[in-house]
Amino acid sequence: MAQVLSDRKDVDFVLFDQLKVDELSKDEEYAEFNRKTIEMIVTEARNLAIKEILPTQKDGDTIGARFDNGVVTTPESFKRAWELFKEGEWVGTSMPAEWGGQGMPHSVGIAVGEYFSAANFAFMMYTGLTNGAAGLIHSFGTEKLKKLFLKNMNTGHWTGTMLLTEPEAGSDVGALTTSAVKNEDGTYSISGNKIFISAGEHDLAENIIHATLARIEGAPAGTAGISLFLVPKIWVNDDGSLAEPNDVVCTGIEEKMGIHGNATASLTLGGKGKCRGYLLGQEHKGMRAMFQMMNGARLHTGASAFADASAAYLYALNYARERVQMRRADAFEKDAQAVTIINHPDVRRMLITMKSYVEGIRSLLYYVAKLIDQSHIAKDEKEKAKYEALIGFLTPICKGYVTDRAFDVANLGMQVYGGYGYIKEYPVEQLVRDIRITMIYEGTNGIQAMDYLGRKTVMDGGKAMMAMMKEMQKTFNTAKEIEVLKPLVEKTEAICKRLGDSAMHLGKAMMEGKIMNALAFSYTFMEASGDTIMAWMLLWRASIASQQIATGNKKKDQKFLEGQIKSAEFFVNNILPLTNGKIETILGACCSAMDIDDESFGGK
Amino acid sequence: MAQVLSDRKDVDFVLFDQLKVDELSKDEEYAEFNRKTIEMIVTEARNLAIKEILPTQKDGDTIGARFDNGVVTTPESFKRAWELFKEGEWVGTSMPAEWGGQGMPHSVGIAVGEYFSAANFAFMMYTGLTNGAAGLIHSFGTEKLKKLFLKNMNTGHWTGTMLLTEPEAGSDVGALTTSAVKNEDGTYSISGNKIFISAGEHDLAENIIHATLARIEGAPAGTAGISLFLVPKIWVNDDGSLAEPNDVVCTGIEEKMGIHGNATASLTLGGKGKCRGYLLGQEHKGMRAMFQMMNGARLHTGASAFADASAAYLYALNYARERVQMRRADAFEKDAQAVTIINHPDVRRMLITMKSYVEGIRSLLYYVAKLIDQSHIAKDEKEKAKYEALIGFLTPICKGYVTDRAFDVANLGMQVYGGYGYIKEYPVEQLVRDIRITMIYEGTNGIQAMDYLGRKTVMDGGKAMMAMMKEMQKTFNTAKEIEVLKPLVEKTEAICKRLGDSAMHLGKAMMEGKIMNALAFSYTFMEASGDTIMAWMLLWRASIASQQIATGNKKKDQKFLEGQIKSAEFFVNNILPLTNGKIETILGACCSAMDIDDESFGGK
Repeated sequence: MAQVLSDRKDVDFVLFDQLKVDELSKDEEYAEFNRKTIEMIVTEARNLAIKEILPTQKDGDTIGARFDNGVVTTPESFKRAWELFKEGEWVGTSMPAEWGGQGMPHSVGIAVGEYFSAANFAFMMYTGLTNGAAGLIHSFGTEKLKKLFLKNMNTGHWTGTMLLTEPEAGSDVGALTTSAVKNEDGTYSISGNKIFISAGEHDLAENIIHATLARIEGAPAGTAGISLFLVPKIWVNDDGSLAEPNDVVCTGIEEKMGIHGNATASLTLGGKGKCRGYLLGQEHKGMRAMFQMMNGARLHTGASAFADASAAYLYALNYARERVQMRRADAFEKDAQAVTIINHPDVRRMLITMKSYVEGIRSLLYYVAKLIDQSHIAKDEKEKAKYEALIGFLTPICKGYVTDRAFDVANLGMQVYGGYGYIKEYPVEQLVRDIRITMIYEGTNGIQAMDYLGRKTVMDGGKAMMAMMKEMQKTFNTAKEIEVLKPLVEKTEAICKRLGDSAMHLGKAMMEGKIMNALAFSYTFMEASGDTIMAWMLLWRASIASQQIATGNKKKDQKFLEGQIKSAEFFVNNILPLTNGKIETILGACCSAMDIDDESFGGK
Repeated sequence: MAQVLSDRKDVDFVLFDQLKVDELSKDEEYAEFNRKTIEMIVTEARNLAIKEILPTQKDGDTIGARFDNGVVTTPESFKRAWELFKEGEWVGTSMPAEWGGQGMPHSVGIAVGEYFSAANFAFMMYTGLTNGAAGLIHSFGTEKLKKLFLKNMNTGHWTGTMLLTEPEAGSDVGALTTSAVKNEDGTYSISGNKIFISAGEHDLAENIIHATLARIEGAPAGTAGISLFLVPKIWVNDDGSLAEPNDVVCTGIEEKMGIHGNATASLTLGGKGKCRGYLLGQEHKGMRAMFQMMNGARLHTGASAFADASAAYLYALNYARERVQMRRADAFEKDAQAVTIINHPDVRRMLITMKSYVEGIRSLLYYVAKLIDQSHIAKDEKEKAKYEALIGFLTPICKGYVTDRAFDVANLGMQVYGGYGYIKEYPVEQLVRDIRITMIYEGTNGIQAMDYLGRKTVMDGGKAMMAMMKEMQKTFNTAKEIEVLKPLVEKTEAICKRLGDSAMHLGKAMMEGKIMNALAFSYTFMEASGDTIMAWMLLWRASIASQQIATGNKKKDQKFLEGQIKSAEFFVNNILPLTNGKIETILGACCSAMDIDDESFGGK
C-alpha cells in the first residue's frame, strides 16, 4: 500500500540501520526503549497521525484560528485531536517522566513528531511551543516553579509559548522594551506589547504559560539587560489551582500565508497594570536561557518543515504513479499509449531530487536528535561537550538549510501535480504555504547563516567543523571500500576539502576586519555546508545499503536499498557540481553586494 | 520619491538606451511612436496603474472571483478598473488600429503591461487572454469572423479565453475529447467539458469568446485531429448584435493558492446540445493555430511573473531602506546604534540578487518584444524568419526560466521583510502566491524545458542557438573594449562555450537514441541557458552604462549607471560559477534519474 506522510521503511532504516538508536537502551536512562518498543511507538504515532490528525489539516487551513474580542477559537476538530493527544500522552514525548513526560529519546521523538507534523504542522506547533517553554522551566526553574507548571504542560493540560518579538524588536531581540518591576512578594509586574506569538492564545487548554523576555527597570541596554519571566495567562495558586486571569490580553491575530490553524497573536501584558510573572533563572541572564529555547525551536522548525516536505514527496510520488498523461518521449509507434507520468524524464528528475533531499535531511535531523540523547547520557563533561559542540554547529544547518530545501521539495511536489498542484483540492498547495514560514521564524535563514559562519565556525576557531569532518571521514573510509561508491566518495572528499578552504578564507577575512564582506557570503557558505552534509548522509546510507545488498539478508528490501545508492549517486553527480560553484564564489570574493552604493540599488 | 511597481529609470534605460525602440518609428507601421509619445504612454500607464489598478489588487485576493449557481462575480473595484481600461483603450494596446487596437509596438506594450500586471496580475489576465484569443481571430479568422468579434474584443467590450484543458488532457492536449459536429449552416455543434479556464466566466464584459480546441467527428487521434473553434458565450447575430446564450455553462471555479481575482472556470459546452461554434482556420489544423496563442500566452506569462517580481524587488528595497533593526556587524562601539537593514550584508546579498535578475529579465523580455516588432515590419521573408527563429528559441526561456526566477525573486522579497513578509498586511505575500501559478500554466516549466532542448535546440540543428550566440558576441565584443568589463566578458564567454558544448552533447545523445537520458537534463540545460542569457543582458547594460559614464553626459544618473556595472559584476562572479556547475552535471551525464527503478523511489 502507498505510504503517506512519511516512508516507514526509510524511517526504520535511519533509526535502526543507520543510527542504531535502539542501542541507546544500553543506558539506564533509555533502558525501556529497545527496538520493539520503539517500533511500537512509531506505529502508534503513525496510526494516530494518519487516522486522526491528518483529517484536521484542512480545517486548520480553511477554518483556522479565529479571533473575536480577545478570544481565539480553534477548529472543533483540533479540540478532539488535542484530547487524543492528551490521552495518548503525545505532548511531552521527550520530557522527563518524573514531570509528566514520556522520557523518550529525542531520536525516537523526532520520528513520532515527523508523522504528526506531516499530518498537521499548525496543530503540532501547540505542542512544539509547549515543549520549548517547559524545557526552560526544567532547565532554569526553581523547584516551586517546576511543581507549579511542568506536569500540566507536559501532559497538555496547559500549553506554553515564547514571547520575544515586539514591533520594533524582531531579529533585533535586544531592542525590546517590555518592562518588569519587582514586587514585594518576589513576583514581577510586567508591562509591554508582544507580537507574532505562535500559539499565543487559543481554546485548546485551560492555561497558557508565556516564557517572556522583558527588561527589569534600570537594566543595561541591549541583550545584556534582558531577563526571562514566566507569565501565566491565568495566575496559578501555590496549591496548583487556577486563580484569576493575569492581565494578558490578546489584541488580535495575524492574517498569514499559511499555518492558519495556529494563532499568531498580539498580546498586551499589563494593560491594566495587573500582569504578574515569575523570574525564570537569574536577572539579566534571560537571553542565555532563551537561547536554549530558541535552539530547540530551531531544530523543531527544521523538523516541521522537513515533515511537510516528506509528505509532499510521497503525495507527488503517489500521484506520479497514478496520473496518466502523454506517451513516452521515445515512443514513436503510432499506437503508443499514454503512460503514468513517473515515466517522464523531467518528472523523474524532480522525484529523485525530492527523494535525495528528503532522505539526506531525515538522516541529518535524526542524527542531531541522537546527538542530543548522547549528550544527555554522556558520562563525562568532555564527551558531553563534544556532542554539544556538534549540535550547536549543526543547528543553523538544521534550521536554515533544511527549511530552504524543504520549501524547494514542496514546490517540486506542486510542480509534479501540474495545474492540480495549485488548487486547494490537492494537499501540496497548503504544504507550500505552511512551510514558507519556517524560512523566516526562529531567526530568518539569513540570521542562521550569520550564526553559522560567525559564531559556530569562525568564533569557534573551526573546532566544531573539524569535529564534524572527522565524523564524515569515518563514513567516507567505509564507503571507499565499496566499489560502486568509491568515485562518489572521492568527489565528495574533494568538495569537503574545498569547503574547508572556504571556511579558512572567510575566517581569515573576518580576522582581518573584512567582516561585512565575509558575512555577505555567509548564506552561500551555509548552503555549501548543507550540500556537503547531505552528501555525507547519503553516502552513509548508501554504504549501509550496499553492505546489506552484499549480505543478501534483506532480499525483500532490495529495491529500496538500490534506491539508497541511486540517491547518493544523483546527489553527488548532479548537486555537488553546483556546490562547487558556490564555493568558487566564496573563494572568488567578489563583493559587489557590499561595494554597491545604496543609491545604486535604484528605485528612486 | 520611492518608485513602486517598476523602476521608471530602468524601464527608460532599456527602452531607449539599450534597445532604442523609438527607432522603430522609422517604419511607417510605427511612425507615430517616437520617443516622446512612448514616454507619454508609459507615464499614463504608470499613473493609471498606481492610482487606479493597484488599489484593486487586494480586493482581487480577499474578495476574489465568486461563483454562485453558474454566475461568476468579480469584485466591484474590478468593474470600475475595467471601465477605466476601456475608456483609456488599454485592452488591445498592441492590436491593429483598424480592428480597434492601439497598434502599439510590443516593445512599448510590454512596458505598459509591466506596470499593470505589477499592480494587479489577476486583473490583467482578463486582457491577456482577450489579446490571445483576438490574435487568433486576426491570424486565422475569415473577414466575417474578424468583423463579428475583433473590434469588441480589442476595446474590452468582450473578452476572450482559451479552452484547451480537460480533466484527462492537461499537458497532454492531444488526449482531449470535446467533440464538434458540422451543422448545415456551416457552424459546428460543440460538446465537452473544459477545466482550468482562466477568465472563463465573469461579469466584466457583455460577452466572452472562447477559442476552443475540439475534435471533429472522425478526426485522427492525437493532436493531428484537433480543430480550433470560436465559441461565444452569447451567440452573435450577423449584424453584430447579441443573440441568445450559447449553452456554455460554468459549473464551478477552482479554489487556488493565488490569483483569486481571476476565475479559473470549469465549463460545460453543449450540455443541452445547443452549443455552437465557428471553425477558426482549417479542420484538423487547430494545434498549429493554438500554438500561436500558446506562444503568445507563454511570453505573457513570463512578463506577468516578471512584473510581480519587479514590484517585489521595489517593495523589499523600500522596506530595507526604512526598517531599522540591529547595529552593523562591524560596529563594536558600545553606543553603536541600530541601522536600516539595507546595511546588513545578507540583506544586500538578497537585494543585489533580486536586482540583477529583475534587470536581466526586463532586458530579455523587452528584447523579445522588440524582435516581435522587428519580425512584424521585416521587409523580406529571410529577415522575418531570422527574427521568428530567435523568438521561438527564446520563448521557453521567457516562460520557463523567467517564471522560476520571478518566484525566487518574490521569495527573496518576502525574506527581506522577515516576519512581516509572511502576513497579508504587506504586499509581497500575495505576490509570491500569485506568481506561483506561472511556473505551471501554459505548459509547466518542465514542458518548457523539453520544448527548449528537444524542439528549439536539437530538432532545429542548433541554428537558432547559434544565431543567438552571434548576437551575444556583438555585446561581448563591445564590452571587451571596456577595461572594467573585460574580465567579466571573458568569464561569460567561457560559460557560453561550455553551454554550446552541453548542447552538442545533448544533441548527440538524442541522435544516438538516448532520448530519455538527454531529456532528464532538459531542465538543467534550460537553467544554464537562462543564466547565460542573463549575463549577456547584464553585460549589454553594463557596456552602455560604462559608455555613458565615460561621456559624462548623464551625471545625474551616475549612481544608477554604476549600479548597472555592479549587477553584471555580481551576476558573473556569483551566479555563473553555479551555471558552470549545471553544465558540469549535463556533461557528467549521470543518469540516476532514469536508471533508478520505479520501485526504488520508495513509498510502498
